[in-house]
Amino acid sequence: MINVAVLGFGTVGSGVVELIDMNKEHIASKLENQLNVKYILDIRDFPDSPYKDKFVKDFSVIENDPDIKVVAEVIGGATFAYDYTVRALKAGKSVVTSNKELVAQKGYELLELAKANNVNYFFEASVGGGIPLIRPMHRCMAANEITKFFGILNGTTNYILTKMIEENVAFSDALKNAQDLGYAEADPTADVEGIDACRKMCILASLAFGNHVYPKDVYAEGITKISLEDVAIADECGFSIKLIGQGENYGKNKKVMVAPALVPHDSLLSGVKDVFNSVLLQGNAVGDVFLSGRGAGKLPTASAVVADILDAAKHFEFLKGWGWQDEIPGSVLTQEELCSPWYIRVKNSKEDVLNLYPDADIVYNENGVIGALLEKDLNKNHYAKFEKLNVLSNIRILEL
Amino acid sequence: MINVAVLGFGTVGSGVVELIDMNKEHIASKLENQLNVKYILDIRDFPDSPYKDKFVKDFSVIENDPDIKVVAEVIGGATFAYDYTVRALKAGKSVVTSNKELVAQKGYELLELAKANNVNYFFEASVGGGIPLIRPMHRCMAANEITKFFGILNGTTNYILTKMIEENVAFSDALKNAQDLGYAEADPTADVEGIDACRKMCILASLAFGNHVYPKDVYAEGITKISLEDVAIADECGFSIKLIGQGENYGKNKKVMVAPALVPHDSLLSGVKDVFNSVLLQGNAVGDVFLSGRGAGKLPTASAVVADILDAAKHFEFLKGWGWQDEIPGSVLTQEELCSPWYIRVKNSKEDVLNLYPDADIVYNENGVIGALLEKDLNKNHYAKFEKLNVLSNIRILEL
Repeated sequence: MINVAVLGFGTVGSGVVELIDMNKEHIASKLENQLNVKYILDIRDFPDSPYKDKFVKDFSVIENDPDIKVVAEVIGGATFAYDYTVRALKAGKSVVTSNKELVAQKGYELLELAKANNVNYFFEASVGGGIPLIRPMHRCMAANEITKFFGILNGTTNYILTKMIEENVAFSDALKNAQDLGYAEADPTADVEGIDACRKMCILASLAFGNHVYPKDVYAEGITKISLEDVAIADECGFSIKLIGQGENYGKNKKVMVAPALVPHDSLLSGVKDVFNSVLLQGNAVGDVFLSGRGAGKLPTASAVVADILDAAKHFEFLKGWGWQDEIPGSVLTQEELCSPWYIRVKNSKEDVLNLYPDADIVYNENGVIGALLEKDLNKNHYAKFEKLNVLSNIRILEL
Repeated sequence: MINVAVLGFGTVGSGVVELIDMNKEHIASKLENQLNVKYILDIRDFPDSPYKDKFVKDFSVIENDPDIKVVAEVIGGATFAYDYTVRALKAGKSVVTSNKELVAQKGYELLELAKANNVNYFFEASVGGGIPLIRPMHRCMAANEITKFFGILNGTTNYILTKMIEENVAFSDALKNAQDLGYAEADPTADVEGIDACRKMCILASLAFGNHVYPKDVYAEGITKISLEDVAIADECGFSIKLIGQGENYGKNKKVMVAPALVPHDSLLSGVKDVFNSVLLQGNAVGDVFLSGRGAGKLPTASAVVADILDAAKHFEFLKGWGWQDEIPGSVLTQEELCSPWYIRVKNSKEDVLNLYPDADIVYNENGVIGALLEKDLNKNHYAKFEKLNVLSNIRILEL
């Protein structure tokens, strides 16, 4: 029997325990052994839980139990989760996690610590929830240089944008609706401001490029300023507006960023709706690989956590070698240094726009408002030109 | 240094050797060791190849070289490939392959043989070319019962159908075009008759359901009878025609089959064009997972083969436990036992159709020809009704 401890009994933690129960026989056949949740750590009491005998409040019980070979950290945040992860790894236990904040902030340190203690630190659930993403990137595409990747990494904002696009619901109402359905938290900042997607991009970029990319270096812009006017104009010209994470390897320098973008209707990414997440990976041998699925939710995320538990249990004392080197300061380009085509909506005349952008494609012209698609240029140059216009909105256009 | 042998220097084999060269440093960093192609086995001579010193004609050279820990079998077919695979496994070498015919026919036997010899037999490249598919299904979705899966598993036929749909080119001309571009072979039978897709479905079904499914038990219908009339009518009602493999777990019984199907325009699968392949997997925890990419071609397929080589090299003498049990005879349902909604085009009156199918949706009615969408029923009942009509064509409708 393989004994594991689950740290945190929130949405994901309770999903992990439930899934191990639900698919008991199937999991045993995959593992060629029984999988048993021996402890659940939570500061709260759950007197009515069928698992009530498993609860502990003191991490040292888990830390000091040699029976526990694998710990699932699904607390979230970077305080207790960090402390327990360090202690578990030092105690020679493999740790699996869904905690994108912790991996984005401390991934390099924790992966090194795992290696030093001859155990594994897995985080398949930290990006894209249940979508197979980290292993496909790290293992199945192992023979490829990953040249570029981009995608939809936050289900809450994709749900809100889908509502705006398909039902003409304004941002604030769509957010309220997402909150009512439990897709958005009471404080939605991390989702709608792009912070959550930024953490996930840091993890993917670290894995793809081989050096840790920290959130502090990654530009993240959310969707709070997206208006129904922009959604409608974009739709007219053949685009959906999506919150897109983008990574690209330019050799010494890298693009890693999160911002709304116009995505062509005929791309697979444009068809990704509601809370679904999707990533397109470009490898220098395989070409484009597109992965899509539920990026959040109790059982989808638990699916990835339990897969990691099984892998960690199978590979106990066998290092899988997930990891990357420390950051290369200055390697992530700033927005000013990057190039992009843009869409703008401005309160100017057509001539004002064409004077600055002779090749602009004017796609909207009503009531003194101009919508235009602008050619690719250094963002620095775009920003200088935007200063000369009365800009109502400006959104990047994704280059596939 | 890890030494490998590549069996067969055709499209895939030359791609494997080229890729190991092209991404040498990247591969060494992933493997934490150098990867070296020591032998290439081929009956032909390649006097001008930069790898000419590596060629051997006698498999026993490879078989008897203890330096060789991993063999890549990319010969294809089930004769020499089978013999060499058996001998390599018995000699204690892990084998990786892109050979769907061999895995579909002999997978259970070869996986058992690998286990008995404490080595691995990997076949990521055998289904979906470069798409991460086998590992995501087996590892990332390990905690899930796979309830259902379906997709586009043959790039040649998807290219032909895309041409028919988008450019109104008849089947025979689209096939000719595919042959000119090297997407279809001189004898296209295995592709256009669904035999290739059937082999891939057998592998996915064996892995998903845990018991070997052999090609002899799987209904396979190709695309040779698809007409431009059907393509146009389907398009009018919101469908694309695709060659679809379908698997579903009904407990004791399974659906495993390949046939053309009408796929709704608003599904991701409908947007998969040209030589791309895609599979949608449904897990009982994760829900829908959609994977897409290049299903064939030199470097995409080599990408998957080399990933397997790296995994096999890392896991030498560590069994990964890929595999399944032997077949359960009679578990795969026949077409008569399955249910489906259908599309038909018949030379009958509207009344003839409505007499047999009172709920039919008549979507075409010109020059004495009726096109109709028929409700779901046992195929056996459909077949009996089709006998009473003058059927020009009949195509299943995919249920998502």
